[in-house]
Amino acid sequence: MSSFLPPTLHLEAADVVQIVQRIGLSRCIAGIADRIERDFRRWPEFDKSARVACHSRDGVIELMPIADDREFAFKYVNGHPKNTQAGLPTVMAFGVLADVDTGAPRLLSELTLTTAIRTAAMSALAARALARPECRVMALIGNGAQSEFQAIAFRDLLGIRTVRVYDVDPSATAKLFANLAEQGIEVIVCRSAGEAAQGADIVTTVTADKVNATILTTDMVTAGMHVNAVGGDCPGKTELHADVLERAAVFVEYAPQTRIEGDIQQMAPDFPVTELWEVLSKKAPGRTSESQVTVFDSVGFALEDYSALTFIRDMAMELGIGRKIELVPALDNPKNLFGLLEARPAHAAIEAAIA
Amino acid sequence: MSSFLPPTLHLEAADVVQIVQRIGLSRCIAGIADRIERDFRRWPEFDKSARVACHSRDGVIELMPIADDREFAFKYVNGHPKNTQAGLPTVMAFGVLADVDTGAPRLLSELTLTTAIRTAAMSALAARALARPECRVMALIGNGAQSEFQAIAFRDLLGIRTVRVYDVDPSATAKLFANLAEQGIEVIVCRSAGEAAQGADIVTTVTADKVNATILTTDMVTAGMHVNAVGGDCPGKTELHADVLERAAVFVEYAPQTRIEGDIQQMAPDFPVTELWEVLSKKAPGRTSESQVTVFDSVGFALEDYSALTFIRDMAMELGIGRKIELVPALDNPKNLFGLLEARPAHAAIEAAIA
Repeated sequence: MSSFLPPTLHLEAADVVQIVQRIGLSRCIAGIADRIERDFRRWPEFDKSARVACHSRDGVIELMPIADDREFAFKYVNGHPKNTQAGLPTVMAFGVLADVDTGAPRLLSELTLTTAIRTAAMSALAARALARPECRVMALIGNGAQSEFQAIAFRDLLGIRTVRVYDVDPSATAKLFANLAEQGIEVIVCRSAGEAAQGADIVTTVTADKVNATILTTDMVTAGMHVNAVGGDCPGKTELHADVLERAAVFVEYAPQTRIEGDIQQMAPDFPVTELWEVLSKKAPGRTSESQVTVFDSVGFALEDYSALTFIRDMAMELGIGRKIELVPALDNPKNLFGLLEARPAHAAIEAAIA
Repeated sequence: MSSFLPPTLHLEAADVVQIVQRIGLSRCIAGIADRIERDFRRWPEFDKSARVACHSRDGVIELMPIADDREFAFKYVNGHPKNTQAGLPTVMAFGVLADVDTGAPRLLSELTLTTAIRTAAMSALAARALARPECRVMALIGNGAQSEFQAIAFRDLLGIRTVRVYDVDPSATAKLFANLAEQGIEVIVCRSAGEAAQGADIVTTVTADKVNATILTTDMVTAGMHVNAVGGDCPGKTELHADVLERAAVFVEYAPQTRIEGDIQQMAPDFPVTELWEVLSKKAPGRTSESQVTVFDSVGFALEDYSALTFIRDMAMELGIGRKIELVPALDNPKNLFGLLEARPAHAAIEAAIA
């Protein structure tokens, strides 16, 4: 076998769990937030496209490719709200890094856990750029698989001390409450989304239903509030009433994708938005007054996964976690693919002959 | 861990080699050709899109998704003609099958070898529908990694007994000659593409250069010939002179993709083509006379990979080949992703605490 082909590193779900445990969740969130910020600041260097979505009755499967001149990344991710009823996660994901020069795949990694971490890192990074300074109270509406990561990211990056939580499923809220017990965050369980929003500096919506829900109406939004809208992320799946968007300054990841998938799918195609990379690069202002309402209409963009994949890869290599797999064959002579079928033990050839 | 999440079967390159060896290459080609034919006949059932291509200086990386109402498939594939100079294959690929109902990934497989087999199966299947009956002689221009598979597929499915071979790289031709030595095919080495085409019933072009090459000109094309144009498969990468297309009946896999990537990228957007599924479904005629020139302008479509992936998956399961991997995490409570980080040995938590 040839030594020219570089190996593919494979990280299964348990490997990434181990990486996060050994580094610590807070340091992972901070590390991924740093990578995202750095990568967003070199936004023009990336070959970007809206993700490719395959919609079915109960959900969606998406491929999210992106590349700079060195690395190509993509994520596979689904969204199936009914999955939890069958004991399956709503969102499952994995991803790949490949060399742009040769096309050789270099990393294959789970991204289910990583997606939750990178989404929280992205949310907190956006809020740090857009929310008022000295936010301490956050409403957290939707207490499912991503909620703990959001709470911890906002604690770490913004200094959130209190979360006011609500979910239509009380057992999801109970789980969140238990998981945050030792995280130094005061958790106030609320009986409605409206109650959760009361007195909040930031409202995070992270619900799963694939419907045009109205989780947040304008009466719940107060002057100076920052809204981190995470759950409205596919056609027919929104969380904010259009009036909330009308009165706010709206920030997005990648406008061509968000206009299809985000809460702004409800608005006209020319509804004004600012891409977050412009704010992070100081090319556009973020919040312009204390009383302004800001909305981060987050849908999840491929660049965040690129950032997360490169971070996880570097940590895995540093910690010596993962195993090498032969995802593509190494060949003595790259033009002799056929030779693969011959260069094996004689008994295999005999088996083939008598089969 | 939950038992709800079905496992992902992983087939590395060596596993697929073993499958092909145990079943035999001929039976693999025939099996995949059958699947492709069956799947092309139910063409309207598939959610189709042109593949997503990321072009760079030396090559292209593509994602090719497709789904019916049960299975979602995608292939990752590159095309880097200069790779062979560095000891790497021009084309490397892997793919995934997932459940449309839940989004759970069920198969992750190498597709480098499989792509060569499915491309040859597709070519021979198209030729069986389009070429004159009783073809015996095929020109094979381009003697790289895919050439043996083309020769064997045409021997098996069309009864080709003689191949007239040519490549700008004589060592590629020598390799092909050696590999076909015991395959019951007469191999005639030619000094030019023109010489190879002389007396051929079918001309297969399977060259790799990412340029607008002119491998086949109209003086090389005789009445009744079938042209299997495999190598012109990306923008700026063609093999046929426009005049060859002008005088032929042209058949394609999926017109929206082929107009971007195929040899017909040279022609006007309304240049008449017939999609092959229509011929296979008897909705459109194939060849209409003995003297007609037919061209299959093949670029490779996601449905062929769907067919190949389902075939390889079924064979792997029958033969008990491959291993289960945890590409996405199994969760006791699907809403408690955070719990993954806690449900591990105490020493890991301690390591994290002191890190």
